Amino acid sequence: MPTLYLIPVTLGDSPIERVLPAENRNVILKIKHFIVEDIRSARRFLKKTDRDINIDELHFYELNQHTDPKMLSALLKPLEQNLDTGIISEAGCPAIADPGADVVRLAQERGYKVVPLVGPSSILLSLMASGFNGQNFAFNGYLPIPPAERAKALKKLEVLSENQTQIFIETPYRNLKMFDDILAHCQAQTRLCIAADITLDTEFIKTKTIKDWKKEKPLMIDKKPCIFLLGR
Amino acid sequence: MPTLYLIPVTLGDSPIERVLPAENRNVILKIKHFIVEDIRSARRFLKKTDRDINIDELHFYELNQHTDPKMLSALLKPLEQNLDTGIISEAGCPAIADPGADVVRLAQERGYKVVPLVGPSSILLSLMASGFNGQNFAFNGYLPIPPAERAKALKKLEVLSENQTQIFIETPYRNLKMFDDILAHCQAQTRLCIAADITLDTEFIKTKTIKDWKKEKPLMIDKKPCIFLLGR
Repeated sequence: MPTLYLIPVTLGDSPIERVLPAENRNVILKIKHFIVEDIRSARRFLKKTDRDINIDELHFYELNQHTDPKMLSALLKPLEQNLDTGIISEAGCPAIADPGADVVRLAQERGYKVVPLVGPSSILLSLMASGFNGQNFAFNGYLPIPPAERAKALKKLEVLSENQTQIFIETPYRNLKMFDDILAHCQAQTRLCIAADITLDTEFIKTKTIKDWKKEKPLMIDKKPCIFLLGR
Repeated sequence: MPTLYLIPVTLGDSPIERVLPAENRNVILKIKHFIVEDIRSARRFLKKTDRDINIDELHFYELNQHTDPKMLSALLKPLEQNLDTGIISEAGCPAIADPGADVVRLAQERGYKVVPLVGPSSILLSLMASGFNGQNFAFNGYLPIPPAERAKALKKLEVLSENQTQIFIETPYRNLKMFDDILAHCQAQTRLCIAADITLDTEFIKTKTIKDWKKEKPLMIDKKPCIFLLGR
């Protein structure tokens, strides 16, 4: 039975051994067909996995926001021909917050085997380290940008966070603006966890009340991959 | 700065190399103080990590549903004495669906460094392989058991799943009952992913419509660790 493997990558420039199990390498070296968000970075990851890998004998198929949904089906051609295929994300785990999910959906519909490999997820790692409720949590992706809508979204998440940890992300260069918005719209006793550069040597994961965050602006998150959590 | 490490373990009897990065071992071997859910299974995991590990020089502190919340503070004694401490869960990632989160919360309040290590999470792996929306998802833990409350909970999750993938778990011996309940209360076109024995050789992860699940009862999930997802 041909298999679609979901292959996580490092979050930024961390050593492979820090965030990926050794067996991922064995799986990767058996695969010749890869669905990738960006061919250059996928090649770089494969070289990092095994510097002796023969890139020229591998086949890459691009899947990103420019991909026509009608072309999704063509990405499953290797599976139709009984050839194992891998999906490699740009950072972290494929199909969590990237277009890979559409291919997985199609593979499930057609009854192919889908096997997810273990790797780093900033959502899960930040939740573990936040101290917040992990029995009940939600990931919300990006919040709206227009000020009135953002204020409304933050206030709604703050209320929900009493029973369910609320997780969201922001584009790196807007992180400090997001921090200011959270401080402006959430109450003094609400707890906020900020996690940046997860799994890197510069990792920063701190939970404080809004009141305490007002005493210390985390300037290090500026332009860094960062995730925000509201909880109790 | 003393550090609280969050140490994931295998999900059932899978090889360490399949689900844990090599560097986790290096971190573990530097730590002498462990907060654990069950001492016997933590010892077994540490032996599996390194068969030459000297268990007798390690200190274990139990944290489970029998632990008096007033005793939580005592678990941070080693950190107060500048000694790195690890939290080891029973299965998967600590502090996600176990009592570890309370210790992490306290460590964050007192300003200790908290470092999460990468490991297998059935929530994240099943979401990756489901083909469902990974931009927006929620984990709900266990659903209520009384029939009327369960029906209500399932119908609510079904509605929410149109915009947010809904994930929940069940006690293994009640899995087939949960399957029957989902089929009884959700609509024919709703999509259900069932994932059991994740990361094991017997791994089973399939997404189908309720209509198609009615043609094939997944008997293999009986008494196996299993996770359910509703999505689109």
